[in-house]
Amino acid sequence: MTDEPTRRPVGRRGLLTGAALTAGGALAGAAALTAARHDDQGVRGAEAVPVAQVGSAVEPFHGPRQAGVATEAQAHAAFVAFDLKPGVDRAGLGRMLRLLSDDAARLTQGRPALADTEPELGLLPARLTVTFGFGPGLYRAAGVDDRRPPSVADLPPLRIDRLQPRWSGGDLLLQICADDPLTVAHAQRVLIKDSRPFAAVRWVQQGFRRAAGAEPGRTQRNLFGQLDGTANPQPGSPLETAVWVPDGPAWLRDSSTLVVRRISMNLETWDLLGRADRELAVGRRLGTGAPLTGSAEHDEPDFAALGPDGLTVIPDFSHLTRAHVTDDRLRILRRAYNYDGVPAADGTADSGLIFAAYQADITRQFLPIQRRLAERDLLNEWTTPIGSAVFAVPPGCPEGGWVGQQLLG
Amino acid sequence: MTDEPTRRPVGRRGLLTGAALTAGGALAGAAALTAARHDDQGVRGAEAVPVAQVGSAVEPFHGPRQAGVATEAQAHAAFVAFDLKPGVDRAGLGRMLRLLSDDAARLTQGRPALADTEPELGLLPARLTVTFGFGPGLYRAAGVDDRRPPSVADLPPLRIDRLQPRWSGGDLLLQICADDPLTVAHAQRVLIKDSRPFAAVRWVQQGFRRAAGAEPGRTQRNLFGQLDGTANPQPGSPLETAVWVPDGPAWLRDSSTLVVRRISMNLETWDLLGRADRELAVGRRLGTGAPLTGSAEHDEPDFAALGPDGLTVIPDFSHLTRAHVTDDRLRILRRAYNYDGVPAADGTADSGLIFAAYQADITRQFLPIQRRLAERDLLNEWTTPIGSAVFAVPPGCPEGGWVGQQLLG
Repeated sequence: MTDEPTRRPVGRRGLLTGAALTAGGALAGAAALTAARHDDQGVRGAEAVPVAQVGSAVEPFHGPRQAGVATEAQAHAAFVAFDLKPGVDRAGLGRMLRLLSDDAARLTQGRPALADTEPELGLLPARLTVTFGFGPGLYRAAGVDDRRPPSVADLPPLRIDRLQPRWSGGDLLLQICADDPLTVAHAQRVLIKDSRPFAAVRWVQQGFRRAAGAEPGRTQRNLFGQLDGTANPQPGSPLETAVWVPDGPAWLRDSSTLVVRRISMNLETWDLLGRADRELAVGRRLGTGAPLTGSAEHDEPDFAALGPDGLTVIPDFSHLTRAHVTDDRLRILRRAYNYDGVPAADGTADSGLIFAAYQADITRQFLPIQRRLAERDLLNEWTTPIGSAVFAVPPGCPEGGWVGQQLLG
Repeated sequence: MTDEPTRRPVGRRGLLTGAALTAGGALAGAAALTAARHDDQGVRGAEAVPVAQVGSAVEPFHGPRQAGVATEAQAHAAFVAFDLKPGVDRAGLGRMLRLLSDDAARLTQGRPALADTEPELGLLPARLTVTFGFGPGLYRAAGVDDRRPPSVADLPPLRIDRLQPRWSGGDLLLQICADDPLTVAHAQRVLIKDSRPFAAVRWVQQGFRRAAGAEPGRTQRNLFGQLDGTANPQPGSPLETAVWVPDGPAWLRDSSTLVVRRISMNLETWDLLGRADRELAVGRRLGTGAPLTGSAEHDEPDFAALGPDGLTVIPDFSHLTRAHVTDDRLRILRRAYNYDGVPAADGTADSGLIFAAYQADITRQFLPIQRRLAERDLLNEWTTPIGSAVFAVPPGCPEGGWVGQQLLG
């Protein structure tokens, strides 16, 4: 049980009918905030990067697996999705991916691309990674649809979706991440320019997390103020099992899959919700991120525990309940970024989450969780998926090689 | 003279007629790039912030002058301009500014705002500053137009302008800067929400510089790859003279003025330009930022020096020549941020600069430079001002006070 008093909100049942959407949630309980502050001291892991290395720190590009997946998430990201141009076939794709792999190999190591017109902007790697994702259309264009991982296909329609084509789909994805926003902008520019003969830009989503070194070793918060990523598989065997395909032909071994969903977050209605009601919707304390039955972020939730009113302490409709899995084979790796666009004249925010989830198999891991969330997760009241795309994440490549060569070479 | 060979480009005269806009500028000279790399070692100042302080570092809010002006520029900024609602008069403005000053005083010190609905997002100041600017309309609304600094008025039309209303004007500006993008997003949200009874959002411009600690003590580069801000007045007496109003009534002493211009940068045509031609357009080496007659960034340019062809080494049409001033009373403090929006399907970038210039007097300092640039600066070929706004930057306030109280209180 939590060591904070369980302040059961008036509107628990009312939440499902929206009756709790009344003003009055503005003031956070002083006790909860104190808990959050206190927790701020308890940095776990604390893998502090010396500040002098923020700009010069390098992530490897070459290797059996692509970087940017298990890599500790950088502060800034641009997700760039392309449509292949008509006539770009297996050979054309090979040329494109050779070129883009070479660009990525150089830029990630702090060297300008071959045809870099702003070479001075290519000297600061800041942990830059460029991760390639292959959409269903790429396999069709290359005539290798039989090699497509079956789970890499449009997701089945979900009741909660309000998908817009401008944030959905794509034949090829480049996930560009770095701890420096100028480094991301430059890499995005170089890679888009070199893609021009082969592909058109379908969509670009730019996002951010906490700055490098701002909160080392901490779980991130999203714009609702929630901790986001607490249940991620831990490095080592859990991450290994959850994310990477362990065997199969060369184009599958050490591959992964990626689901990118753009989740609009309605800050206007969320901000009308009381703090206790928010915590019931999430199933966790906002301050510490602890499950409502625990006192620390990583405590195991006790879904059977009952409160004095005979109801489970963690509601069945909570995000925690719906998303919870214990088997590493069923976990997903959340690697999400916040977005914050320009608000409307009346101040309505254009904010949300670029939800990016890596897993070995979308059908086995992502879809069951997503279906449970779509069914009953109370957070759906304040969030709307407005974009969706799926990609295979092919294996990495050795020095001199290129991403996709096992599939297309 | 420069210690690099002066490779006079073919197209020098042709530049003015656009004839030099041919492909072939893609490959940078290896020598120049080596110079840039070498210069990367020569960090001057090197005011490295220990990484553990990126999140917790605090800038003062209270004081005779507002923060966010002489403050070393943070990595992220949101410029938020408001239109006052009809009927918001001197008393209403007083209420609004009391509220926003209180929000800013708290958030900048790492404390949530009073009505903060996501208080956990208010705990990481990351050098947050909130700087208030008063547009011409605010003085009119308050009935104190006689107290408006005369230079705070719409700029005279310039030949180069292609101004769009959606990036121009505004009665009140909040310049929100921090080294963490989530901190900026949260402060933006809180301040906009508390402004709602009084004002509508007119425009928001979000921008970035290098991440905190990525290149400590270095002049920033913009998305053209140029160093930007080399000629800024140095801290101490030069900055003092350039930026702050030294005397006058209480609402002027320790005030400043701000010009915000959104400058679209045409990366497509810039990237077609050869490196030597770029350097003539700027008047400086791209690698080191040295004037074409010098070898280090802060060398004084020699505008009289002639090359072997009898032409001045630094062309009369160069940005350096047109912008150059030596008297601190005529300098401006550039505090610019890059922006990088979503590119078009064909890859055309939506990139540029949120040019923010602080000076004691717009008429004395900003306008003469801007007029000289508008007349002949060759960079105009690749840049277009698409937004423009001017603001008085009132003095700061003591603890318990509010920004604007000398004017409106």
